[in-house]
Amino acid sequence: MTDTKTCKESRVIKTAHVFPSDTNNHDTLFGGKLMSFIDDVASLSAIRHARMPVVTASTDSVDFLTPIVPSDSVCLESFVTWTGKSSMEVFVKVVAEHLLDGERRIAATAFLSFVALDENKKKVPVPKVVPETDEEKKLHETAPVRLEARKKRREES
Amino acid sequence: MTDTKTCKESRVIKTAHVFPSDTNNHDTLFGGKLMSFIDDVASLSAIRHARMPVVTASTDSVDFLTPIVPSDSVCLESFVTWTGKSSMEVFVKVVAEHLLDGERRIAATAFLSFVALDENKKKVPVPKVVPETDEEKKLHETAPVRLEARKKRREES
Amino acid sequence: MTDTKTCKESRVIKTAHVFPSDTNNHDTLFGGKLMSFIDDVASLSAIRHARMPVVTASTDSVDFLTPIVPSDSVCLESFVTWTGKSSMEVFVKVVAEHLLDGERRIAATAFLSFVALDENKKKVPVPKVVPETDEEKKLHETAPVRLEARKKRREES
Amino acid sequence: MTDTKTCKESRVIKTAHVFPSDTNNHDTLFGGKLMSFIDDVASLSAIRHARMPVVTASTDSVDFLTPIVPSDSVCLESFVTWTGKSSMEVFVKVVAEHLLDGERRIAATAFLSFVALDENKKKVPVPKVVPETDEEKKLHETAPVRLEARKKRREES
Amino acid sequence: MTDTKTCKESRVIKTAHVFPSDTNNHDTLFGGKLMSFIDDVASLSAIRHARMPVVTASTDSVDFLTPIVPSDSVCLESFVTWTGKSSMEVFVKVVAEHLLDGERRIAATAFLSFVALDENKKKVPVPKVVPETDEEKKLHETAPVRLEARKKRREES
Amino acid sequence: MTDTKTCKESRVIKTAHVFPSDTNNHDTLFGGKLMSFIDDVASLSAIRHARMPVVTASTDSVDFLTPIVPSDSVCLESFVTWTGKSSMEVFVKVVAEHLLDGERRIAATAFLSFVALDENKKKVPVPKVVPETDEEKKLHETAPVRLEARKKRREES
Ligand SMILES: CC(C)(COP(=O)(O)OP(=O)(O)OC[C@H]1O[C@@H](n2cnc3c(N)ncnc32)[C@H](O)[C@@H]1OP(=O)(O)O)[C@@H](O)C(=O)NCCC(=O)NCCS
Ligand SMILES: CC(C)(COP(=O)(O)OP(=O)(O)OC[C@H]1O[C@@H](n2cnc3c(N)ncnc32)[C@H](O)[C@@H]1OP(=O)(O)O)[C@@H](O)C(=O)NCCC(=O)NCCS
Ligand SMILES: CC(C)(COP(=O)(O)OP(=O)(O)OC[C@H]1O[C@@H](n2cnc3c(N)ncnc32)[C@H](O)[C@@H]1OP(=O)(O)O)[C@@H](O)C(=O)NCCC(=O)NCCS
Ligand SMILES: CC(C)(COP(=O)(O)OP(=O)(O)OC[C@H]1O[C@@H](n2cnc3c(N)ncnc32)[C@H](O)[C@@H]1OP(=O)(O)O)[C@@H](O)C(=O)NCCC(=O)NCCS
Repeated sequence: MTDTKTCKESRVIKTAHVFPSDTNNHDTLFGGKLMSFIDDVASLSAIRHARMPVVTASTDSVDFLTPIVPSDSVCLESFVTWTGKSSMEVFVKVVAEHLLDGERRIAATAFLSFVALDENKKKVPVPKVVPETDEEKKLHETAPVRLEARKKRREES
Repeated sequence: MTDTKTCKESRVIKTAHVFPSDTNNHDTLFGGKLMSFIDDVASLSAIRHARMPVVTASTDSVDFLTPIVPSDSVCLESFVTWTGKSSMEVFVKVVAEHLLDGERRIAATAFLSFVALDENKKKVPVPKVVPETDEEKKLHETAPVRLEARKKRREES
Repeated sequence: MTDTKTCKESRVIKTAHVFPSDTNNHDTLFGGKLMSFIDDVASLSAIRHARMPVVTASTDSVDFLTPIVPSDSVCLESFVTWTGKSSMEVFVKVVAEHLLDGERRIAATAFLSFVALDENKKKVPVPKVVPETDEEKKLHETAPVRLEARKKRREES
Repeated sequence: MTDTKTCKESRVIKTAHVFPSDTNNHDTLFGGKLMSFIDDVASLSAIRHARMPVVTASTDSVDFLTPIVPSDSVCLESFVTWTGKSSMEVFVKVVAEHLLDGERRIAATAFLSFVALDENKKKVPVPKVVPETDEEKKLHETAPVRLEARKKRREES
Repeated sequence: MTDTKTCKESRVIKTAHVFPSDTNNHDTLFGGKLMSFIDDVASLSAIRHARMPVVTASTDSVDFLTPIVPSDSVCLESFVTWTGKSSMEVFVKVVAEHLLDGERRIAATAFLSFVALDENKKKVPVPKVVPETDEEKKLHETAPVRLEARKKRREES
Repeated sequence: MTDTKTCKESRVIKTAHVFPSDTNNHDTLFGGKLMSFIDDVASLSAIRHARMPVVTASTDSVDFLTPIVPSDSVCLESFVTWTGKSSMEVFVKVVAEHLLDGERRIAATAFLSFVALDENKKKVPVPKVVPETDEEKKLHETAPVRLEARKKRREES
């Protein structure tokens, strides 16, 4: 295993149809369905970075900015932004695209935390992540603040 | 429409099997699948309170405290804890129960926000919520702090 | 294992959205989908009572009293009403609730029989059930008649 | 519309894999999943006979005679056995087949009742059914007894 | 194992509803969903012939001749047309039937190839297939031409 | 609408987990499930190019080169390679990636044809496609041969 990996190495893209069966009475994609897509790509990024099985430790808060409807497609992009010892923070950006006019809008962004576990469910160390682009660097630098907030949250609850 | 409703009137319970097909390589329920269950019951609570269609505006951060496996059942309980004008905060508690020994443990807790919308997707006012039990009162009283955090979060992003 | 359990100890509740994808050309929930929900909660009640894996031995006849549509939620309640040596009878009540006006109506009731089996698929004895409320007592007392009908049915077929 | 139809004209066959995701801890197909398959083919038979949309009015009791496992395929056959004015009785036979040795065994038989409804959910008359083979004739002749039992059941409940 | 089997012995029939959730913006069944049904029945035919686990080696080209909509049912028929040493060619015919007027039309036909593998994923020989009807004989006789085309295709790619 | 579009403008990527529930007795992804993924991304490429609803007209033959198992992720890439008047050819490449060692291998390639239809299901013209990279150019240049083969196939059947 190399000691470091770039953000790019864990980048995962998933484009999907919005099926009417995943929508509510407003013809709007269920928030829970989108959360499920988000966890899906984020866990693939975490596994690509760690090359180990992972579990979701937490999802930070998510704001749903715009309804997503069956005439949209949805495109999710994710990559590892920060690493601890055995934990990783993954950023996910969700873009909705109107199928017929091509207009794109950000539907949500989210941060999730994953922990790498071996087959005996023991924590295992993960490679350090190396940000390269401006966006990656910014997300990497602001990670410790989010980490602190998560710790505080856990202590309080 | 009455002007107020108790928390109890929006209480929703959902018990479910954990199917192997919803689990990852560790035989652990996917975080995204649980998020989807959480949104499901929470939206039912919000609709029961508002008696209007609703959309998920946001989910606060969720910590996954314990793995959930196919030998568990999972039980979710939710109710409205706080109301704004057209928005509602819903609390969800997730309990995993080992099917064969009956041992129960809290797997996660979550707060979600919903907005009531009429058929033209216009915001509509919702009844005030009235907490009765100690747990309901505590969650009601601490809601403005969480509300503030959400507002700050939206401004920053 | 205690020798007896109350009906209450096996009580299971499941509330669910009715998704358009589970409905037929009349926008009515498929009978088979409801049967599947019914078996789901009933088996959880049987497992909670026996704290052993179970299989469905039979479902008694079910009358579908009212159509269930996507503007409803559906709420199922089940508990063990009667126990033999290794077999249990479970009662399920299905209530449809109109999401927007809150009106509730009984959509179906059903009795199912489960048998507790160990990992070698050998029958294992289950605790006796103790009814407490009037409804529980009535269902417990009328169980032998239903049992007799099931036996006769099996002999004839 | 012709005034009569043979049983054969409504005969429907469905063969399916048994997926591990539809099985419980004993690797046994869920009873509810099989009920869902049964309703599926039975409703196709009813629609073929009536050439109108239908809803499930009831399912008679079903005994599950043998576990069905992922190394089996399952084959369901159904046809209309009896007709009232707008109602039809449908018989379903479920055969499990071991995929590797080809051994077949009856897993369950069931009778369901359907009612034909037009687009305004008004009942509509259906053609008379004409049995031809010995099996069809026997099931047709014994139908009034089952009909009587269903009536009695509804009066009692 | 007998050395030969008739086409009839591997004949599989599957009738299914077309659910709105499997359709696109034109209310037309997704091509991919139909491909999935086709693989499903074809693999059952291959397993019935070989009485061994099988994997799909290839699907020949498929033309979708007519849209399939939720007011249709779809009926697939498949059987083994030709056998090599461990490989089998399976023919699938897809018929769409309008539920209300009973009109039937061919929606697609397809040839798929399967290979029989034992538990160590070693190829195993399969019985020779014996065509009996005119349709079976014609498909059997034209199989070597399709086989040749597949070989050429693999060499070119 | 612009008169031309590049291949890049219709490029779609979808990465996905391989769920055990989508695999057969060999723990191998069902061929039909992969066909369904393939149709899914290909139709998104066709819609992005045409910015109109589309239907699948045909899938050319697909060879499954390597088994895909639950310890893999699967990544599909597609883009429009050629356009007629209202029809488009889409190329799909399927890459399986072993989650733990990162090894990637081509699992299948496929060509599908789509036709753009307006809301009255009338054919509508689509923009010309402009290949840019070497791969795109090669696939564009060889398209007429595949088109010819499809025409011949339709005439013969
Ligand atoms: C939620 C939504 C309706 C808010 O619209 P908006 O124009 O920002 O609304 P406003 O600013 O007027 O706020 C309306 C209410 O929502 C609340 N709200 C808005 N965004 C919120 C958020 N992220 N979290 C919690 N509450 C929020 C406001 O506080 C306000 O509450 P009040 O009526 O009780 O005072 C809109 O963002 C939306 O449609 N989002 C998509 C919802 C969706 O489709 N979810 C599933 C996605 S897969
Ligand atoms: C996540 C989990 C493994 C953490 O276990 P733990 O005993 O609390 O672990 P530790 O306190 O030793 O922390 C291990 C790492 O996880 C991180 N972590 C723990 N809880 C976390 C949380 N809620 N959010 C983010 N990171 C978390 C720690 O910071 C630490 O990081 P580091 O190794 O980089 O320093 C454990 O809580 C668990 O198994 N949860 C359930 C996971 C699951 O099944 N998810 C899906 C639920 S449906
Ligand atoms: C249910 C099953 C275990 C019964 O096996 P069996 O050999 O007939 O068992 P027995 O005759 O010894 O009866 C055992 C118990 O089951 C009860 N039982 C058997 N068939 C029953 C039926 N159809 N309905 C209700 N109870 C039944 C008996 O009354 C007896 O009860 P008791 O132990 O309380 O006295 C067996 O038929 C089976 O495995 N069926 C398939 C179960 C299944 O897979 N269901 C899902 C199908 S998709
Ligand atoms: C595809 C379909 C619209 C073609 O209709 P048609 O009346 O045969 O159309 P035409 O012969 O006028 O051909 C229209 C275009 O489609 C192309 N086409 C027709 N059949 C085709 C096939 N099998 N493969 C590839 N292209 C095909 C023609 O070459 C022509 O292309 P052009 O406009 O670029 O010159 C029609 O067959 C259909 O609706 N099929 C069902 C589609 C569907 O529902 N798919 C999912 C099935 S589950």
